[in-house]
Amino acid sequence: MAPLIRFNNDYSRGAHSAILDALSRTNREAYPGYGTDEWCEEASRLIRAACAAPDATVHFATGGTPANVVAISHILRPWESVLAPETAHIHVHETGAAEHAGHKIEALAAPDGKIRSSQVREAARAWETSPVPEHVTRPRMVSVSFPTENGMLYSRTELAELREACDAHGLYLHIDGARMAYGLGAPQADATLADIAAAADTFTIGGTKCGALFGEAVVVTNPHLAAHYRSSLKQNNAMLAKGWLLGLQFATLFEPRPGSGNGCLYFEIGREAVAQALRIRRGLADAGIEAWSESPTNQQFALFTASQLAALGARYAYQEWGPGEPGPDGEPRTVARLCTSWATTQAEVDALLADLPEIAKA
Amino acid sequence: MAPLIRFNNDYSRGAHSAILDALSRTNREAYPGYGTDEWCEEASRLIRAACAAPDATVHFATGGTPANVVAISHILRPWESVLAPETAHIHVHETGAAEHAGHKIEALAAPDGKIRSSQVREAARAWETSPVPEHVTRPRMVSVSFPTENGMLYSRTELAELREACDAHGLYLHIDGARMAYGLGAPQADATLADIAAAADTFTIGGTKCGALFGEAVVVTNPHLAAHYRSSLKQNNAMLAKGWLLGLQFATLFEPRPGSGNGCLYFEIGREAVAQALRIRRGLADAGIEAWSESPTNQQFALFTASQLAALGARYAYQEWGPGEPGPDGEPRTVARLCTSWATTQAEVDALLADLPEIAKA
Amino acid sequence: MAPLIRFNNDYSRGAHSAILDALSRTNREAYPGYGTDEWCEEASRLIRAACAAPDATVHFATGGTPANVVAISHILRPWESVLAPETAHIHVHETGAAEHAGHKIEALAAPDGKIRSSQVREAARAWETSPVPEHVTRPRMVSVSFPTENGMLYSRTELAELREACDAHGLYLHIDGARMAYGLGAPQADATLADIAAAADTFTIGGTKCGALFGEAVVVTNPHLAAHYRSSLKQNNAMLAKGWLLGLQFATLFEPRPGSGNGCLYFEIGREAVAQALRIRRGLADAGIEAWSESPTNQQFALFTASQLAALGARYAYQEWGPGEPGPDGEPRTVARLCTSWATTQAEVDALLADLPEIAKA
Amino acid sequence: MAPLIRFNNDYSRGAHSAILDALSRTNREAYPGYGTDEWCEEASRLIRAACAAPDATVHFATGGTPANVVAISHILRPWESVLAPETAHIHVHETGAAEHAGHKIEALAAPDGKIRSSQVREAARAWETSPVPEHVTRPRMVSVSFPTENGMLYSRTELAELREACDAHGLYLHIDGARMAYGLGAPQADATLADIAAAADTFTIGGTKCGALFGEAVVVTNPHLAAHYRSSLKQNNAMLAKGWLLGLQFATLFEPRPGSGNGCLYFEIGREAVAQALRIRRGLADAGIEAWSESPTNQQFALFTASQLAALGARYAYQEWGPGEPGPDGEPRTVARLCTSWATTQAEVDALLADLPEIAKA
Repeated sequence: MAPLIRFNNDYSRGAHSAILDALSRTNREAYPGYGTDEWCEEASRLIRAACAAPDATVHFATGGTPANVVAISHILRPWESVLAPETAHIHVHETGAAEHAGHKIEALAAPDGKIRSSQVREAARAWETSPVPEHVTRPRMVSVSFPTENGMLYSRTELAELREACDAHGLYLHIDGARMAYGLGAPQADATLADIAAAADTFTIGGTKCGALFGEAVVVTNPHLAAHYRSSLKQNNAMLAKGWLLGLQFATLFEPRPGSGNGCLYFEIGREAVAQALRIRRGLADAGIEAWSESPTNQQFALFTASQLAALGARYAYQEWGPGEPGPDGEPRTVARLCTSWATTQAEVDALLADLPEIAKA
Repeated sequence: MAPLIRFNNDYSRGAHSAILDALSRTNREAYPGYGTDEWCEEASRLIRAACAAPDATVHFATGGTPANVVAISHILRPWESVLAPETAHIHVHETGAAEHAGHKIEALAAPDGKIRSSQVREAARAWETSPVPEHVTRPRMVSVSFPTENGMLYSRTELAELREACDAHGLYLHIDGARMAYGLGAPQADATLADIAAAADTFTIGGTKCGALFGEAVVVTNPHLAAHYRSSLKQNNAMLAKGWLLGLQFATLFEPRPGSGNGCLYFEIGREAVAQALRIRRGLADAGIEAWSESPTNQQFALFTASQLAALGARYAYQEWGPGEPGPDGEPRTVARLCTSWATTQAEVDALLADLPEIAKA
Repeated sequence: MAPLIRFNNDYSRGAHSAILDALSRTNREAYPGYGTDEWCEEASRLIRAACAAPDATVHFATGGTPANVVAISHILRPWESVLAPETAHIHVHETGAAEHAGHKIEALAAPDGKIRSSQVREAARAWETSPVPEHVTRPRMVSVSFPTENGMLYSRTELAELREACDAHGLYLHIDGARMAYGLGAPQADATLADIAAAADTFTIGGTKCGALFGEAVVVTNPHLAAHYRSSLKQNNAMLAKGWLLGLQFATLFEPRPGSGNGCLYFEIGREAVAQALRIRRGLADAGIEAWSESPTNQQFALFTASQLAALGARYAYQEWGPGEPGPDGEPRTVARLCTSWATTQAEVDALLADLPEIAKA
Repeated sequence: MAPLIRFNNDYSRGAHSAILDALSRTNREAYPGYGTDEWCEEASRLIRAACAAPDATVHFATGGTPANVVAISHILRPWESVLAPETAHIHVHETGAAEHAGHKIEALAAPDGKIRSSQVREAARAWETSPVPEHVTRPRMVSVSFPTENGMLYSRTELAELREACDAHGLYLHIDGARMAYGLGAPQADATLADIAAAADTFTIGGTKCGALFGEAVVVTNPHLAAHYRSSLKQNNAMLAKGWLLGLQFATLFEPRPGSGNGCLYFEIGREAVAQALRIRRGLADAGIEAWSESPTNQQFALFTASQLAALGARYAYQEWGPGEPGPDGEPRTVARLCTSWATTQAEVDALLADLPEIAKA
């Protein structure tokens, strides 16, 4: 039996070949430890440039959960809390790491995985106008994901509105960019990395899911948050002894490519994976399989009947996302996720597209 | 101008005279510190008897928030969380003390301030059936208040159902009894202290709001939770150096009264305050002022228009609880709380009842 | 058999009669909760005056451990630590409450229970000059007790030197004043409450051991630490619902007494208890029982042989402090503590003094 | 100028070529995430075999600090503390991560970097016999490093004695094996991996410094500690999304080599690096440069005068370890560390040995 073609997630394979090449090329070189090496410096420089944020500080963390926890632990005082969508990774899939570090996450309703600036303002005002503010955690950080856990994007305007709401109420804005490449790579995205940097006080640029072997860049644009960030990285288990391994990967991902304008491997990876995801999106629609979300990014979600899912699963790995609304005829349906990544090939998607009409009829 | 008659809360005055007398009587006696004295022993004995829980251990904490935090910190392992109503004091009015101690509170919908066993089962099953349980906090404790923050009661059956749900899924049941006297004292209550003890793994018996100067009793009925509880009390700032002050108060509250069956001051305080509250409840209804909740306990909530509230406030202290539904004619209304306590007098309630018709017309 | 005369500790009895009177007198008055009442305001005003610190903020906590933990949790960032004597209460007798709140205590050698400014400077420089400061907790607070746990005092000069060391290295100075009255009341003390306030960023004024029923005042003299202090009090279980009980006690203790200069009950309690302790000190010396410490305050420590200790214990309660150096003839000796307090009477000390020669011969 | 030959640490280069090869070979394979893959399973099987611990569970963490913090956070209850040498990495170089997770580390004197079972027994008894055990953290875990931070080894007997002391007092034994290969590879070592496993409740096998690109194996031999270990890994930021990267590396390191008995790459790496370190040790002695420690492992420490250090540093990278005792003629000396690792070559050591006589004369 042929192995499954894998669309189940975007972290099931190693690294882009350029990353592996870089690791091999430098394997015998000696570097200082803990992120004080020349590759981290170079990657920081490149990321600052890509973000048009010359004064930002950039760090590198072992993964996305560590990077998020560091931001929360570093920035907030003990009585301060995080406003986040109810679907946020930090709220539902980090084993309470934020609370383990001492902070409440105040989950806001987010039917489409996004929260609006009006919700932020309302939550901030609730604390400000509380008759007993010292009995209530103070919302001090907004954390959103770009793209969200279900593939959606904040527009440039929405980001600016979140920023304004944060400014109006003295909140920090953290953006979890574990899939940043796939957000920026969506044709529909009108926010650039510079827009993200302008909106956020701190954000992450995911490597793990976006071509690197592992690791995330952490960008701190608010200079008031910069001091002692390395202490927080170390204390929260986010710092790698051989830090240059992370710097080297991000330098590889963000090195400008000759003749490609602002282009670099990171952006290219994002664009290509999203292009393949949108092919799948169209294929699903053409086959009459209903989309579950509007996702314009690398994660596509659709509603399958049990027999359709069985047919899909015979040849393709997918991830079950939860129960969905029944079909028009009342038939139960399941939401399944199909992901592309830097490792997805044209041929893999071709195969799926060819099979989808058959799967739809199953 | 005469001082306001105070119905705004149940913790605005000192202590029942019997408590003050006991403190005066023993003031020059010397006792061992930190709750190892004879009064704490005596109060423990009396409370075990009142709970029909001969094997329970009883401790005394400086207040309700400390008592709740100790239970959470002592019982749960780091990756475990608490299921609680969205209105729970531990969730919304303890400045994130539970999270400060490292634990997530998973808030469940509770339109009437209560959660149902079905919600507990559903949340427990969600973790049990998660494909990635190690990424998700494990619900391990249910925390409910008796009576709830808005005055409602769990019935004996509901408590037994919560217990069954906890047993079915390996959860602990904690009951926050900051207003226990006023729950037990409600004519409508069918649960006794023994029922509470039988249902819960640990619960508190509030003194602060129920006749004591300050302090809560903490009852641990589950013998597996008993070891090192005093370490948790000390570590979480809940232990009083002069612990006998707490033991003495609870001994006074729970000493059986000659010729009163199972009676003691604590129960009497509860019954009398609730009786006065129910007079207010009827008075509000008679005056045509709509109740906001079904509360059968010492806290009464009703919907007032702005002019009614002004009339009420001219002579009576109340607590604004939040915006309410508009009146039948669309007029905006506010929910106000009127509380009785051990300190409420017949005359105070008489005065209010006499004024209510006028207030209603305002 | 007559009951023991108790010199074992300074927290074994209720409260000074003036405190009990005040509680009785106001018992039926109604006050706002959580320290927002007029007694807390009045006590704050009186304490600011007594400290000559008109801009300080004053809070009231349920006890000494809570007050210390709040200071640590409120002031420090996660990667910051506390420098404290190895004998500090926060290090050895608070069940790791500081660590539970996330902070390392770096214990400094303190043969006499005191640390010197040179130790502070050395520890601060060790971090400043570390090649890997982000791997090491940053000492950010110095915590000392006045008097120390074994009764010693920092001189005015020593306090000023600690302050200078803190200023030189950006550290905060916290002073644990659980026995403040007995420090200030020592004839040998050259530091006043104003000196304490001038030296410290935050300090406590103990009530529990110094005449109050319970509770400590928390003085925050550094205005940069003032914001949100109440949130930290609540989050760390240090806030009392009926906060006026604490304010009232401290207002009673700090109310200036007519014709007594700067006098108030708090100072008087301290002076009288220390006077009695020094009588004991002289009595011990006269009887040939060797002092274990130089303590000029209400705690006296001396070296007893087993038979002396038995003779002492027949009539007096003392606290065993640990093994001491053997006597001149090699006989094993034990350090015992004899404490006076606000509750100690002239007659009690007279009795001991009369018995000491006999005890010494035992 | 030729680049420095680097003996400054053992984590300044990438990975053994076998590791890089394995990563390249599997780079396009797809695996399940978070350590649930076949490589982690295979590596676990191999490690259990190497440890002669068939019932142990094995996990993989991103680094040494994460692995240590997980053990502490997972195993201890909030009031429990860790006994560790004053020089322990968890005490002095993890930015208070243990305290951030809520636990006190009780540092024991360790002039040679090791603690003795008598110290463990004494500390345990101090708590057991405390008159106020609930005011004192309970020592519940002993944490030692094998080899220690300054290169020393516990003998088989010493490990057994620590185990006995732990058993006698109900403590857990954790062994930090960040440099395990270099401990096991010392000719002087009489403890095997099986002895380590038999002594410890949990221990780590370091990859980062011992041939891997990054990562540590975590072995849990005590079955009572096994449950929910993955939750603690995730919560403490120690879990890698692409977990197979760690499993693959450890499978490569622990795969038995044909014809080598119990041999595997991990042991070979250890033996070879230590052999080179011992050549340096002898070379230092031959040149008359005094050793600072007895280290029989890959870290060598010696005392250099300023001019010697300058001569050394002209061609070799070393790590300054701190001030040392003055030389026989009173000349100030500095302790410098010279490390070998999997990456050290015979030629590099040859060069140093040739230069040492000259350096000694500088």
